[in-house]
Amino acid sequence: LEPGRKVITGRGSADDKGQLMTFVEACRAWKQVHGNLPCRITILFEGEEESGSPSLKPFLEANADELKADFALVCDTSMWDRDTPSICVGLRGLVGEEIIVKAADRDLHSGLYGGAAANPIRILAKVLADIHDKDGHITIPGFYDGVEETPSQILKSWETLGETAETFLGPVGLSIPSGEKGRSLLELTWARPTAEFNGITGGYTGKGFKTVIAAQASAKVSFRLVHKQDPKKIRAAFQQFVRERIPADCSVEFHPHGGSPAIQLSYDSPFLAKAKTALSDEWPKPAVTIGGGGSIPVVGDFQTYLGMESLLVGFGLDDDRIHSPNEKYELSSFHKGQRSWARILEALTS
Amino acid sequence: LEPGRKVITGRGSADDKGQLMTFVEACRAWKQVHGNLPCRITILFEGEEESGSPSLKPFLEANADELKADFALVCDTSMWDRDTPSICVGLRGLVGEEIIVKAADRDLHSGLYGGAAANPIRILAKVLADIHDKDGHITIPGFYDGVEETPSQILKSWETLGETAETFLGPVGLSIPSGEKGRSLLELTWARPTAEFNGITGGYTGKGFKTVIAAQASAKVSFRLVHKQDPKKIRAAFQQFVRERIPADCSVEFHPHGGSPAIQLSYDSPFLAKAKTALSDEWPKPAVTIGGGGSIPVVGDFQTYLGMESLLVGFGLDDDRIHSPNEKYELSSFHKGQRSWARILEALTS
Repeated sequence: LEPGRKVITGRGSADDKGQLMTFVEACRAWKQVHGNLPCRITILFEGEEESGSPSLKPFLEANADELKADFALVCDTSMWDRDTPSICVGLRGLVGEEIIVKAADRDLHSGLYGGAAANPIRILAKVLADIHDKDGHITIPGFYDGVEETPSQILKSWETLGETAETFLGPVGLSIPSGEKGRSLLELTWARPTAEFNGITGGYTGKGFKTVIAAQASAKVSFRLVHKQDPKKIRAAFQQFVRERIPADCSVEFHPHGGSPAIQLSYDSPFLAKAKTALSDEWPKPAVTIGGGGSIPVVGDFQTYLGMESLLVGFGLDDDRIHSPNEKYELSSFHKGQRSWARILEALTS
Repeated sequence: LEPGRKVITGRGSADDKGQLMTFVEACRAWKQVHGNLPCRITILFEGEEESGSPSLKPFLEANADELKADFALVCDTSMWDRDTPSICVGLRGLVGEEIIVKAADRDLHSGLYGGAAANPIRILAKVLADIHDKDGHITIPGFYDGVEETPSQILKSWETLGETAETFLGPVGLSIPSGEKGRSLLELTWARPTAEFNGITGGYTGKGFKTVIAAQASAKVSFRLVHKQDPKKIRAAFQQFVRERIPADCSVEFHPHGGSPAIQLSYDSPFLAKAKTALSDEWPKPAVTIGGGGSIPVVGDFQTYLGMESLLVGFGLDDDRIHSPNEKYELSSFHKGQRSWARILEALTS
């Protein structure tokens, strides 16, 4: 760290104890100055996110009436950079599926059977290769159902952030965006759905060579979803797409691995506009509206069980090393974050 | 085994001690009857085949003048079935290559980078899928250079053997030939070249799921060659084919694993005709001319170092379990094989 950056170091300092305490301290400060809070606030601490929140859903269902509010403030996101606060309005959903292609009932010698027996790696490669066309679009029928174009003013505001292939891909040793042609990197990762291959295995994978035709080959495939894409329909369409490509004397097995819809919050909510102004007043640069490639499941649960939208504001930084040793949270995030929340509370309640 | 089939059981009983002794005993019997052999015969025992025959090539080179003969009799093949002796005239060659596709310089989170960063499994799947067209032809430019059509009378003779998808693929649980469309199974495995994928790996391959975009993915690919296909040219053409499909910001590494040309013996040699007649006289059914999907390297070495063609006759059976526990060689193969060799020696020298 350069001189002058003071940090709190420790497991969970940024994700998510520091973020939560930023909001709690803002409330305490407000009370000290005004005597009481500007409106009724229920604070919900949830400690099971990383293990799938098994207790949260039943708790929300059982206590829906008491928990329901105008909206939720979720304290778990990042700033665009050290000078630019942000509000996250979209989080992608996910469908994961493992497919196992099975051909002969045993491994075969490629000298004796090569050119005659179905090769499951060849079948699998063809299935995977067919999923994207040459422009990076996903070819599974119905895949884009429910996907909307990002409003042009949002795309323009993302352009001003100056993210380029060099800034985004350069740090990992790449330079050419691989997704749908003609879309910016921020749109690709924040507002467009994807199909990615997370793992593949089949046949002999050790050192040297074995001239074997394996009995089976498998791949783990995941889809990031946006807007109103339906995880169940995507899974069914993908399975159908695969089945159509399996020769009649071979078979395929599917092993589902989770599915959740995307979160898309309203771009034109008055809460959003007020919070943006409040944040912009505190930091050197105006607040921006961003998306997120991953998921924050509680936001979906608030929608599903409480019918409640969320406002996602956070003060994490890209270099906070969350989930890693020496995780840190900057004192500037903590202090200016408290003032930010106080400004937001004022803007939303005045 | 059904009653009446007597066998010699033991490691190497069929492959290849039994086969060799069948010929040695034929020579011994000939000498007992006639007093001496019908022509000069040099017997070469080679015990290193399974470990790549490191000593054989230098030995052949150093002793070429002494070893050179009209032709070689190679005792290492199988009968078509228990009633039908065979002469093998073609053995496929092999080119093996491992390819490693590299994208980002580390594994990436598919939520943060999905749809933006190159995915090496996707690149690899596309490369592999492009190798065969929809009719099973191999699309690598120049791949079929040197491949000749099998003479129609040979194809007809193979038809009479009655091999079908049911008899060939049924025992391994398949039913549909996967190679080039419009060719018989025997032609596919005896006289046509192949591209097979022997192994593939990349990304997360354990239980469950990880939403990772791996830094690399790799595949082991092998080609069976026929006729005059040049292993060096095939390897170079394949590497070029792969390179053309690697995005500019990614890379590929190649690890070669052996290469040898096919063996194609003359269909119209007078030795072949005489040996076929001699064999046909000994067994219930006439001898057939077959090919082989694998390799017998010594045949190529005889061609290369001694300019000498081989006559491949053997009495192994499909159920001999060679290289496996309880390998066996049938007494009928041993006894009728000796008489067969005596007939062949007589036919070739009279």
